[in-house]
Amino acid sequence: MSITRAGDLVLLISPEHKRYLIKLQPGGSWFSHRGSIEHDVLIGQPLGRTVNTQHGYAYLALEPSTNDLIQDMPRTTQIIYGKDAAQIVLRLNLYPGRRIVEAGTGSGGLTLLLARTVMPTGQVYSYETRPESYAMARDNLVELGVQPYVTLYNEDISAGFHETEVDACFLDVREPWLFLDQAWTTLKGSGFFGALLPTANQVSELLTGLEARPFGDIAVEEVLIRPWKPVPARLRPADRMLAHSAFLIFARKIARDDPSLKLSWMPEKKQRAYLAKQVMAQREAARNCEPPLEMPEPDKVDQVDEVDAVDEVATVSACRRD
Amino acid sequence: MSITRAGDLVLLISPEHKRYLIKLQPGGSWFSHRGSIEHDVLIGQPLGRTVNTQHGYAYLALEPSTNDLIQDMPRTTQIIYGKDAAQIVLRLNLYPGRRIVEAGTGSGGLTLLLARTVMPTGQVYSYETRPESYAMARDNLVELGVQPYVTLYNEDISAGFHETEVDACFLDVREPWLFLDQAWTTLKGSGFFGALLPTANQVSELLTGLEARPFGDIAVEEVLIRPWKPVPARLRPADRMLAHSAFLIFARKIARDDPSLKLSWMPEKKQRAYLAKQVMAQREAARNCEPPLEMPEPDKVDQVDEVDAVDEVATVSACRRD
Amino acid sequence: MSITRAGDLVLLISPEHKRYLIKLQPGGSWFSHRGSIEHDVLIGQPLGRTVNTQHGYAYLALEPSTNDLIQDMPRTTQIIYGKDAAQIVLRLNLYPGRRIVEAGTGSGGLTLLLARTVMPTGQVYSYETRPESYAMARDNLVELGVQPYVTLYNEDISAGFHETEVDACFLDVREPWLFLDQAWTTLKGSGFFGALLPTANQVSELLTGLEARPFGDIAVEEVLIRPWKPVPARLRPADRMLAHSAFLIFARKIARDDPSLKLSWMPEKKQRAYLAKQVMAQREAARNCEPPLEMPEPDKVDQVDEVDAVDEVATVSACRRD
Amino acid sequence: MSITRAGDLVLLISPEHKRYLIKLQPGGSWFSHRGSIEHDVLIGQPLGRTVNTQHGYAYLALEPSTNDLIQDMPRTTQIIYGKDAAQIVLRLNLYPGRRIVEAGTGSGGLTLLLARTVMPTGQVYSYETRPESYAMARDNLVELGVQPYVTLYNEDISAGFHETEVDACFLDVREPWLFLDQAWTTLKGSGFFGALLPTANQVSELLTGLEARPFGDIAVEEVLIRPWKPVPARLRPADRMLAHSAFLIFARKIARDDPSLKLSWMPEKKQRAYLAKQVMAQREAARNCEPPLEMPEPDKVDQVDEVDAVDEVATVSACRRD
Repeated sequence: MSITRAGDLVLLISPEHKRYLIKLQPGGSWFSHRGSIEHDVLIGQPLGRTVNTQHGYAYLALEPSTNDLIQDMPRTTQIIYGKDAAQIVLRLNLYPGRRIVEAGTGSGGLTLLLARTVMPTGQVYSYETRPESYAMARDNLVELGVQPYVTLYNEDISAGFHETEVDACFLDVREPWLFLDQAWTTLKGSGFFGALLPTANQVSELLTGLEARPFGDIAVEEVLIRPWKPVPARLRPADRMLAHSAFLIFARKIARDDPSLKLSWMPEKKQRAYLAKQVMAQREAARNCEPPLEMPEPDKVDQVDEVDAVDEVATVSACRRD
Repeated sequence: MSITRAGDLVLLISPEHKRYLIKLQPGGSWFSHRGSIEHDVLIGQPLGRTVNTQHGYAYLALEPSTNDLIQDMPRTTQIIYGKDAAQIVLRLNLYPGRRIVEAGTGSGGLTLLLARTVMPTGQVYSYETRPESYAMARDNLVELGVQPYVTLYNEDISAGFHETEVDACFLDVREPWLFLDQAWTTLKGSGFFGALLPTANQVSELLTGLEARPFGDIAVEEVLIRPWKPVPARLRPADRMLAHSAFLIFARKIARDDPSLKLSWMPEKKQRAYLAKQVMAQREAARNCEPPLEMPEPDKVDQVDEVDAVDEVATVSACRRD
Repeated sequence: MSITRAGDLVLLISPEHKRYLIKLQPGGSWFSHRGSIEHDVLIGQPLGRTVNTQHGYAYLALEPSTNDLIQDMPRTTQIIYGKDAAQIVLRLNLYPGRRIVEAGTGSGGLTLLLARTVMPTGQVYSYETRPESYAMARDNLVELGVQPYVTLYNEDISAGFHETEVDACFLDVREPWLFLDQAWTTLKGSGFFGALLPTANQVSELLTGLEARPFGDIAVEEVLIRPWKPVPARLRPADRMLAHSAFLIFARKIARDDPSLKLSWMPEKKQRAYLAKQVMAQREAARNCEPPLEMPEPDKVDQVDEVDAVDEVATVSACRRD
Repeated sequence: MSITRAGDLVLLISPEHKRYLIKLQPGGSWFSHRGSIEHDVLIGQPLGRTVNTQHGYAYLALEPSTNDLIQDMPRTTQIIYGKDAAQIVLRLNLYPGRRIVEAGTGSGGLTLLLARTVMPTGQVYSYETRPESYAMARDNLVELGVQPYVTLYNEDISAGFHETEVDACFLDVREPWLFLDQAWTTLKGSGFFGALLPTANQVSELLTGLEARPFGDIAVEEVLIRPWKPVPARLRPADRMLAHSAFLIFARKIARDDPSLKLSWMPEKKQRAYLAKQVMAQREAARNCEPPLEMPEPDKVDQVDEVDAVDEVATVSACRRD
């Protein structure tokens, strides 16, 4: 049976379901407006039980989850919500052994979850420019024992990341579109890119940046959690919910100069029109032995007549001067 | 740079953004209505690039994520959605080294994600009664290489789980309320309980079962993902979205016979009334040396007058016959 | 140009976007923690402008909407949200000239909107059992000038409604399933039924009642409004939103003893099975001249083999003894 | 009892809950893949009952709602969803007797609902530039009998609307920000403005236009309907839902040159800073008898020290030269 020890973090839940995190210290006390609880009542005992203040109010004592730790962290910045962090871990395909670059570190909330996801064989490389955030994140991560799995940099990312061939790269900065080349460079081929942005305007800017570079499988999504009141005879959603924290944007790294990248993201109708145009250009080129057509802008191909010559594209022979 | 090898799974994304998973075999071909792609074009090459069918259609070739693997699994049952699986991993506080009991296994989709989360030092203990699901899950998990981290049982869970002191227990069965004692027994103190249910009626039944047992911090929630069209100049949500997959229910194991468990979950007003009643009963008992009041049903305490005697609860001396 | 007069209701919006409703009285004053505003500054003036407290804080003075009036009403009960009221008006197909029965009246919030929707030629018949709610609703509706369009009853609806052949019937009571026969009777054929219920358990009870009676086109829905912050350069949803007010349930009145009502609500597969069974029974009856099969329970027909004899149903001749 | 007559529109609901609208004609037939239904079976009969095809399939025959009529209209454009139309009627405060300007008419779907809302004493003034939409809307509205309540213009709105002092103005055009001056001019003081836009980029543009003009109480919102499966023993939301149709934007007309309009929409902190600055400027002006400070840009006032001189604003005496 797991028994608490001095130094452990314990979650206390109040009668009104408020959550408090305390670090057990021999002889210590935790104070609330309902009275105090002695740490010694908890040390050396199993969790999953209630402890009383001297006024008789019962608090539930539990092992805290990683998300409880994140929400309770000392912070200089907005802390990430569990719902978003969970979706990021899923979408960036993180698991033990993976290597991920993160910027900025902030207070280290997401960094903690990333480290606990890729440990013991993976690594989080986390960049933060503000010295006070860097220091706070470092202290938080040391306190929570994940520093072996995190490489923390107090550096600007304009000059790029130190790592290459990483599995994933996540940008939680105000203007991630400024660092897309850096993100592309640090990622392995097919690597997972992600970003978090609060406003729609920023999402548009980031998408413009992603479209201009070799990224594919681009997605934008919001995660909403709708809580219900856990009352079996009067089951209903809670009255209020979090309506918005941030938009999540995901993409995959594609090879630079991939000849078909643009093509692959055209709608099918445009693809057919483009391919047909290619065929006609190659036919013409075969007659004249002139260089073939350049790749057109995607939104200009719509006007091309859709002759059913698509299948010829691969078979039209190249011009040979001999 | 990571290079594909024979036997690797590769994700192909079509021009209309449909996703296909293929296993690379030397000399193999993948067929679609747009023409075929030779596996040999992919083997020995980096991912993150497009490959063309002989008709000139470009498919994006990527490393599949765990969620891509889950959605593509051979299945006998409904496969879990990524959004729900991610929230379950967060809420059950899973990370490398944790031990989790799961029932039922189904086709092994969630099992795969759980295994990839707790490996290499943790373990998933997964129970499935239907032989055909058990066999399919076993094959799926062997195929995906996570069998070292999964103990699979083709067993009914009525008689209980083989494991004790596990960190988490997840029930994905039709009537989880029938197995709450088994779940309680397998969990460590303060351990994480979860369940997934499609209908509100089932949620009510499960909550009734949880309330009747020593479980605390009970929560019900839905996860909704709202996808957006990734078009920067015309940014808007997608037209349609998944409106419902399942309700997620979470709770924590509390010690049996915890004297204050019921109390800790009463609303504050009821607590005060109950405590006041306790004080009065103890006073009366002190006078008469009769046994003190039994714990009342939570919804009967409302009628008690709220005397301001709460602080006396702990100090009223017990009856001594001497 | 419309000019305010004494007695008019005016909406004041504070700098923090709080909304206040005041009734203009010559010489009157409206007080807030930012200072007061004299009614005389507003009387005889156009709306759509700001007025200052003596401390220089500007309040926006506007014509109130019906929804503003509803949200500000003196109340003994929960007031209906605008989002739900709007959907009810749409779904019950209300417009000038329609007649609608409502129970209970509550504080008269929905009644006001209904009256303003069906006036000047329609009528709302509203029932309320609690005398204090009845009196408050009556005062509210007189105050707002819609009493010519509302017939208010301080009566229990167990004995039924006084009206017949009404276009729509809306139940906002705790146990609407107790009054479905009364609702059916008051409605015209094909009339619109609606109800509002906060919990899923109540919805199940009401649906059970509706299914047991001649009602069709049954629907359950929730209305969610997601507000956005109106900031053009940082466009994003508001942080929090109303997650739940109530479930809305709608149905249509069908003729009693409609021979095909049950059939029409079976899924197609069940229908085919049922019709096939009917054909076979009629064939058998034709041979033996025994009475044909009774209508089976819907969920028992699944087992019937689906012979492709459906088209024969109408043509198998009845048994004639001659 | 209401009896159908030749010429009536009737809603037929299929066994799979598909909805069809038919116009009753003596001797007419309605055909489906399940067989046909003779109109004469419906004419002269009450609605709210099932009618069978000759193959024995039962269709539910109902009075159509206004929303059923809208969804079934012949169309050249996207038809408005009921959920959005209902919220627009609520937010624009429409009821019998109100006058509303609408542009563009489109196929007349929203126009129909608006007409049925403000009739018999109000009027809808609807503008449409495309001749084919204008003709289709005119035919649709004549067919549905609301032409007495609609004034239809086949005109461009750049030159402004013919009406003044209308209660509400609704813009359903691609670039509503181009017509805000026209909207402002047609509205009465405090009048209700609304617009519908599919993309976030358009919302930003419209908000920019509204902020630059005398409009107040600006709001942006989305309406989401979450349908549930009406199955009492297995109550759950439907699998899929409409995720997005459009953003709705609302505002109120404010007097031109309202001296405090900008002030009233500053956050309180900025207001205090601005008022303090005003006081200091007036003090300075009183000393020098120079003209007082101009209104600053809202986002420049933050830097001003917040002296607690706000209450002086109204009392600092103006400069008198004598």
